[in-house]
Amino acid sequence: MKFTKMHGCGNDYVYVNGFRELVKDPSAAAIRVSDRHFGIGSDGLIIIRPSGIADCEMDMYNADGSRGAMCGNGIRCVGKYVYDHGIVDHPEIDVATGSGIKHLKMTVENGKVSSVTVNMGQPEQTSGLDETILVDGKEWKFTGISMGNPHAVVFVEDPWTMDLPKIGPSFETHERFPDRTNTEFIHVVDRGHIDMRVWERGSGETLACGTGCCACAAAAMLHGIVDDRVDVKVLGGTLTIEWNRTDNCIYMTGPATEVFSGEIEGL
Amino acid sequence: MKFTKMHGCGNDYVYVNGFRELVKDPSAAAIRVSDRHFGIGSDGLIIIRPSGIADCEMDMYNADGSRGAMCGNGIRCVGKYVYDHGIVDHPEIDVATGSGIKHLKMTVENGKVSSVTVNMGQPEQTSGLDETILVDGKEWKFTGISMGNPHAVVFVEDPWTMDLPKIGPSFETHERFPDRTNTEFIHVVDRGHIDMRVWERGSGETLACGTGCCACAAAAMLHGIVDDRVDVKVLGGTLTIEWNRTDNCIYMTGPATEVFSGEIEGL
Repeated sequence: MKFTKMHGCGNDYVYVNGFRELVKDPSAAAIRVSDRHFGIGSDGLIIIRPSGIADCEMDMYNADGSRGAMCGNGIRCVGKYVYDHGIVDHPEIDVATGSGIKHLKMTVENGKVSSVTVNMGQPEQTSGLDETILVDGKEWKFTGISMGNPHAVVFVEDPWTMDLPKIGPSFETHERFPDRTNTEFIHVVDRGHIDMRVWERGSGETLACGTGCCACAAAAMLHGIVDDRVDVKVLGGTLTIEWNRTDNCIYMTGPATEVFSGEIEGL
Repeated sequence: MKFTKMHGCGNDYVYVNGFRELVKDPSAAAIRVSDRHFGIGSDGLIIIRPSGIADCEMDMYNADGSRGAMCGNGIRCVGKYVYDHGIVDHPEIDVATGSGIKHLKMTVENGKVSSVTVNMGQPEQTSGLDETILVDGKEWKFTGISMGNPHAVVFVEDPWTMDLPKIGPSFETHERFPDRTNTEFIHVVDRGHIDMRVWERGSGETLACGTGCCACAAAAMLHGIVDDRVDVKVLGGTLTIEWNRTDNCIYMTGPATEVFSGEIEGL
């Protein structure tokens, strides 16, 4: 099986060109390729397939073999792949995902895609601004935002030095969030910049979370402390988030990087 | 740069054929390729070069760019690479390493190497049998063995369930070991089988440690509780260790696996 390894802000997947390659058992393949010591090493497997309703389909599997619906960092790499490899010849495309059709706008430099803007949909406020919550015996304040998946955004002094592996699980499994929650710990640097660390539901700390960046930008915008366009710095890089007040949608812009291509036998 | 990803018991390196490829800055390349999210992902980089004093040279770099001297799991993959890729045509070879010339004997099945035996040299006892030591306020017993690098072998009831990340660092930095130490926590299942977890000096817990398996087998043999040939089971697989009483050398036999081949630009 031929493949290409790509990442968006360190969120890395093995990409397979489903226009050419047939993957017989994608779930088993995802488990095998994702292992970072015995396989290729990735957060999962994304097969880019032909689609009748969009320019292509993003068929996504997590490292445990389960099907993923959508990934903001992953879909940017899908856009770069199909443009750079000549599967599409225009820089604005539709991609069919498990969360519906997503519209992508690519920035092209020297014939290659350097960054991709994705319409991430409308945010939904799911709590009061700064709702008080008792976690591990201490009072915290959070703002609940849904981007299709649940987020609790917490303003802190310094996200980089806090003990995230200790407090993250306590938020994730708190009774206030019966479906568990993603939690973003953010510091507003100025009206155009936010620093963020994220604890993802089911995954723990990650280098970047696309919907988390959207949620924290939306929360800070609802608080009126940042402008409608803001850079969110995460461990794996920086994403630019814009809230378009005309269609009420959040637009996420960020890099997509091809690292290497290879071939693995027996898949 | 063309490369092949291989592992021995999960100890994985990026292998480059230095008979064909020129790597300009191996140290910088090692740092870049080893990153598991932004690079290829590995424990380091091994360049297989021509040698005037052996069948080939193993030029090894750790993930942080520092030069490595020798790796028991890595050198088995070197053997498999040069035989399977036709660089050598005989199954017994010499490999030049930073720790001297090592002799390898390959087992070949269907034209490909399935396992490799490496002469790991003579063990040296560096403490009494079951020397008492106070670690984290508790009395432990260890047997010190050098395989060129230092090991403290500790017999425990159940290595799999113990809190290794807690006790490992306390052994590593104990004043009894001024150069710090690798520590193996082992359980002797019967006279032919040992279970082992290892805390490596400077690396923390790893899936496998070749010299650690040799050291724990030697310690158990010195205690007279296992035979001269024993299987050591680690998280990443199983290694067979034999102490040859004629030349007093330890021979390690284990698997070597090629996972995929690829090409990365800009190196």
